[in-house]
Formats: sequence, structure tokens, C-alpha cells
Amino acid sequence: MKSVGLVVEYNPFHNGHLYHLQASKEKAEADAVIAVMSGHFLQRGEPALVSKWSRAKMALQQGADLVIELPYAFATQKAEIFAEGAISILEALKCDSVCFGSENGDISPFLETAETLKELDSDYQDAIKYYMKQGISYPSAQTKAYQSLNTGGHTLDLSLPNNILGYQYVKAIQKQGAAISPLTIKRTAAGYHDEEFNETPIASATSIRKAIFSEENKDIQSFVPETSLYHLKQYKDNFDTFHQWEDYFGFLKYTICTMTHDELKQIYEVEEGLENRIKSLIQQASSFKDFMEQLKTKRYTWTRLQRLCLHILTRTTKEQMKLEEAAAPYLRLLGMSSQGRTYLNRIKKAVDKPIVSTLSAFSHPLLNLDIKAASVYAMIFPEPIRSQFMHSEYSTRPVQYDEKEKLFL
Amino acid sequence: MKSVGLVVEYNPFHNGHLYHLQASKEKAEADAVIAVMSGHFLQRGEPALVSKWSRAKMALQQGADLVIELPYAFATQKAEIFAEGAISILEALKCDSVCFGSENGDISPFLETAETLKELDSDYQDAIKYYMKQGISYPSAQTKAYQSLNTGGHTLDLSLPNNILGYQYVKAIQKQGAAISPLTIKRTAAGYHDEEFNETPIASATSIRKAIFSEENKDIQSFVPETSLYHLKQYKDNFDTFHQWEDYFGFLKYTICTMTHDELKQIYEVEEGLENRIKSLIQQASSFKDFMEQLKTKRYTWTRLQRLCLHILTRTTKEQMKLEEAAAPYLRLLGMSSQGRTYLNRIKKAVDKPIVSTLSAFSHPLLNLDIKAASVYAMIFPEPIRSQFMHSEYSTRPVQYDEKEKLFL
Repeated sequence: MKSVGLVVEYNPFHNGHLYHLQASKEKAEADAVIAVMSGHFLQRGEPALVSKWSRAKMALQQGADLVIELPYAFATQKAEIFAEGAISILEALKCDSVCFGSENGDISPFLETAETLKELDSDYQDAIKYYMKQGISYPSAQTKAYQSLNTGGHTLDLSLPNNILGYQYVKAIQKQGAAISPLTIKRTAAGYHDEEFNETPIASATSIRKAIFSEENKDIQSFVPETSLYHLKQYKDNFDTFHQWEDYFGFLKYTICTMTHDELKQIYEVEEGLENRIKSLIQQASSFKDFMEQLKTKRYTWTRLQRLCLHILTRTTKEQMKLEEAAAPYLRLLGMSSQGRTYLNRIKKAVDKPIVSTLSAFSHPLLNLDIKAASVYAMIFPEPIRSQFMHSEYSTRPVQYDEKEKLFL
Repeated sequence: MKSVGLVVEYNPFHNGHLYHLQASKEKAEADAVIAVMSGHFLQRGEPALVSKWSRAKMALQQGADLVIELPYAFATQKAEIFAEGAISILEALKCDSVCFGSENGDISPFLETAETLKELDSDYQDAIKYYMKQGISYPSAQTKAYQSLNTGGHTLDLSLPNNILGYQYVKAIQKQGAAISPLTIKRTAAGYHDEEFNETPIASATSIRKAIFSEENKDIQSFVPETSLYHLKQYKDNFDTFHQWEDYFGFLKYTICTMTHDELKQIYEVEEGLENRIKSLIQQASSFKDFMEQLKTKRYTWTRLQRLCLHILTRTTKEQMKLEEAAAPYLRLLGMSSQGRTYLNRIKKAVDKPIVSTLSAFSHPLLNLDIKAASVYAMIFPEPIRSQFMHSEYSTRPVQYDEKEKLFL
């Protein structure tokens, strides 16, 4: 029974994701699709539109067989750590391959880049430091450093987010000595950060979210499967909201105002005197966007600062984010299809990490961060919904989907 | 120029307060009335209905000449520390007397009790410990311990809140060797905690607040001066709310959920494993009242637990509340009448503590707690009101009132 791994956020699951899922399954000749999915907060340091449970359901109904939560400690990190966490989960689940989207659909530039950067690593790191000292952001310094190397003519553009992730998957596989084949499929029409719709049935998640939050009530039904529409609607009916940063701004402001400079300095990613800027700028900031725009400098990307705000919001300290190794210590199962269950039963004995189905059965400091993230995610609800949502985080069992009957069990 | 000091909360300023103010001024034969008033949070661990600025205005219009803020570090404490902070401010302002309300209007039982308890202090402390071990609250243990002493027939009932405060003022005066005469006037009709109105024009602040929050829209105009009604109405018009604990419950819950057990243990008043109860009970609590009712035990009074919740809300640690001495280190002037200004000018040179008129001019760790308290108090406002309120905390100068022209300057 062959499996292919996908590293996803599904925020929300759209036609591009469906294409990626199906094409990956075909390319890998896989019998089971394993999706490693971020939980309630995403790599760009944002809350997901809807809960991980809703997003797991969207995935299962469109062909995912297992949905595993990428822990907060990996999901809200720069590409390198994000990829290491995801690959470690796929490796633990005996995944045969990982398949990601890329601009040209050819895996060789990724392998070559990984090889080259391994060989030239000390030059590369030196060059990154050199460019960082010029006051630009880490990703820009990486791009410039890479361009400055004598890479023998490889042309992988590491300034593109998909390429960075792809490269990091390959690198993580090598680093972890994982028995996973890296595969890539050619991405279709929409760019990662496209904000507008175009004429194909594929639109970026960014543009879909933008439409969801737009006042014009733009229609997204051409761009997402019906099942996604259904779960989005159901979530809105139940919880009366789609989550976005502005909803959490009051809590962020409150936390910054009540923390001392020293406490703020202990928060993950708060570095180099940023605590002073944060403390002074928050006072007059009247919205999250306003705060971010004031906080932004050439030195830090929006994403980096947004993640930093997220760690303040969840009060996640450097100490709590200290990873003993660059690998997820548990496998939190959010959902599975019948095929997924069969797959899990087959490999179970060989899996050397705990598979967490209910929270009461297992405890780990990193899992506590996931629970904390869930409770922060729920804070914008009025009571008693807030209490109910938090209760469900403890008691919800993995979603089970019968793909033949098209029914949740 | 003689002055009398009053220790007040004015939440809100009502007819009973007016009677107390006028009777105290008369009894003390004073030319100026100095009110030491709690800021945004009160001794029972609650937010004040309206801001300290509004309450200072109410006081000035009804005869107070100086309104000084009792710092958070004293205002939100048990009677002993509360009284020590207040007396230290009155002493610094060269107050000739302090006048409080009591059941029988006679100061001698207070003096005798203070004398007796000083003499029998070690017996008293031992008896308190003995009763505490039986699992009852500190105030109950105090009462029982006091009753168990051979006090030679003094009958001051230390289970009544006004008597406790009165006794503590007298004790603080003795302890600080302050040149302040303690005076008392007989309280009128309403009991401290009366919840219902009766037929006199005097009602307790508790019953007035209850009426304000009641859905029946009970009329309070028989019980408060017109000026109080005016400021209450104006506050409601400007800020659309009267503050109460339930408004802050989301922030309390959020804070408890994001703090670790260790962080919670560092909060002032979190003791003896309470952090575990707090952490586990908050999850399912659907309101502040609900949470408090679950948290309540025989061991802790409601007030004690409410103060503890307040310190969590404001993230005030044991470290931050460590008082170097039982005295306020600064005098924050909230407002003054013309008479108050004259008084201040006369004594100014003899005052050995900084008089703080604007925040930018002075800095102190305890003042930071007051600023933090103000920003937490403002957290329930929507933007941009929240930012404006916080800005005003920095820039508002003391309120000036011309009592002859009946005009704010």
C-alpha cells in the first residue's frame, strides 16, 4: 500500500488543492494520501478562517485519507523548521513520497539546489550574515546570498514561497535521512499570493479569503469544491464568524499592555530590542493592520512580524519553543477515511511515535502549545460557545469519513 | 488652614458620601477636605463604574478640595495595607485629621481596640493562625481570634467592614507615628452592603450600583447628587458602558488560558496551589460569576478571590507588589478646587513626596501599575475609544474646579 504525503493548510480547501491532491496521488502511484495540516494558526502567523476540524473534513471529502495536525511549534515557523516538522511526521507514518507544487514541475533543480547549498553551506551562511548586516530581512538575505554563490547555473528562484518550501522539504529529507521520495507537480494558473480572481477555476487561497471578507460578497463557488462551501457555511452558521487577525487585536493589545518589557523579551521571536518598539507602538494603534504597518521595517518581513504577534497572542516563550530535535514528537490524528484507517492499521506497529486520538490519553509540552493555541483561537467567541469550543478540543475524536458512502461516521 | 482627610471610593458619589464629607468637615473644623480615592479598580477587586476622572469630578463638585489617587498597590489590598497607603498619603499632605464613618460614632472603642491588640498582639496572631488552620477565611479567623482575647470588655465588632477599616486607620496612624487625629462620625441608615433601597435619601453604593445595572432601570436620583447623575450620564454617553467584572471576563479567561502554572503562581495573591484550581475551573466557566462561584471555598472570601482575579487580569506579580515600605511613594493629584490649590500651595514646601500632576514628569514602578491598571480598564472599549482613553491617561492634567463659580476650569 503506497502513500504520498502533502503538506497543507487548506485555508480553505479549494480547486487548486484538489488538483494538487489528485495529481500528487497519481504521480506517486499512491493508494493513500496523508495530509499534514497546520492547526488553528498558520505559517504566515494568521488564524485559519475556520477550525482545523472543519478543514480536516473538507480534506477528507476531497480525497485525503489521513489528516495529521502539524504542531504549533512547527506550523508557525519559518520554512526550514516548518518543513522539518512536516517531513518528520510523514517519515514517522512511513510515507513513500512527499509531493509539492512548483513552478516548472521538475524535481531536479530542487535536488541540485539542496546538493549545492550543502556543499557551499559555509559560504552561503556567511553571505546571509553579510546581507543581514545591511539591514534587510532574512528571506531577502537568503535570496541574495543564494544568487551570490557560484551554483553552476542552477536557476531555482528561492524568492518564490513555493520554491523555498520545496527546497526545505528536500533538505529536511536529506537531513533526517528519511526514506521519502520528493516529488513535485507543476502548479497551475494562480500564484501563491494572487489577490484577484482570474478566469480559470483555480484561484489562490489568498484571493478566496479576500473574497470571503470582502463587503461585496464576491462569489467563491467557482473556485472551491461544494464540500468546502458547505463547511464554510456551516462554520459561519455555528460560530457566526470567519477568523481573522483583527478579531484578536484586543487580546494582543491587552497582552502587550500588561506584560513587562522583560516578559515580552521572553516571547519567541522577540529579539534585538523589538520589545521596546512593540510596547510603545501598541498604545496608539487602533487596529491590527495599523499596528503592523507601524511595526514594519526593512529588517523584518510582514510574515515574520505577524508570527511574532501570534506568539505574543498565545504567550509562547522562547523556552516553550525550544525543540529538543527538529521532529514532531507525536502524531495528532484529526481525521481519516476508511482507506486511511486501513493504512494506519497496516503501519501501526512500525510507528515509533505516539498517535494521539484524544487529548486525555497523552501529554507533551508541545501538545500543550497546541491546546493553548486552540483556546486562544476560541477566545473571540461569546460564552457559552467559547467554553463549548474549548471543551470540544479535549473531547473531539478524530473525524471518520466513509469515502464509499460519502458519509461522516 | 485645617484639613480633614477622607478615604473613599465614590463608586459612585452618593448622598451618604455627601453627608460623610460635610459632617467630617464640620467635626474636624476643617477648611479643606482631602479625599484619597481608589483609581479604576477598587478594594473589593472590582472595576469602578466609571473612570477615576469622572469620580474625581463628582467629589469636587460636592465639596472635596483635593482628590488624590490611592495607588493600585494599596487600593486593591486587604484593609491593613489599604489603610496604611491611605494614611501615608494624608500624612504626607499634612492632614490634621482623618474621619471615617462608624456604627456608633464614638472613636474611643477604636483607640482602645488598637491599644489592646497592640498589647495582646502575639496572642492575637497565634489565635488567627489557630483558626486559619481550621480552614476558614482570614477575616473570619481575625474575628474569632479577636473574640477569643481577653479584651477587658471592648465591644468593637471587627466583623463589620467599616469597623475593620476604622481600626486599621487608627493602627496605621500609630504605626506610622502620623500627626493625624482619627475622628469618626455616626453612619446613617444604609448598611455597607445593603442591596435594596429603603425610604431615606441615603442608600449604599452597592444598592445604587445594583439599580444602575438592573434591567428594570430603577431610578437612583433620590440617592445621588445631581452632579453624580450628570457625570454618570456623560460617561455612559461617551463610553457607552458602566464597567463591571463580566465585561472583563474574556480577558481574564484568555490570560489564565495562556499563562503557565508557574506564571500564574507568580501572580500576587495566588497561593497554596490555587493556580491549579484556577487553571482547571476556567475552562468550563461561562461567566465571571460562574467562575467565582466555582472557585469559592470556605477558605477564601469572595473579596479575596475577586482581588486575586483582578491581579491576574492586570498581570500583577508578587514581585511587582513588593512594597519597600507601607507608604505611598508619590501623590497623584486627580483634581482640586480653588481651596485645594490654596491648601497645596501652603504646604507644598513641607511635602516630602513628589506630587504627580502629569505622568510624563515622573516615573516609579508603582505608578507603572496604575498606568497598567488604566490600560486594562480601557480594554473593553472598541477602537478608537480604547486608544483615546489610554492616551488621556498620559495627558490628562488634574481636574480644576472653581467652587465659587461652580465651573471646571
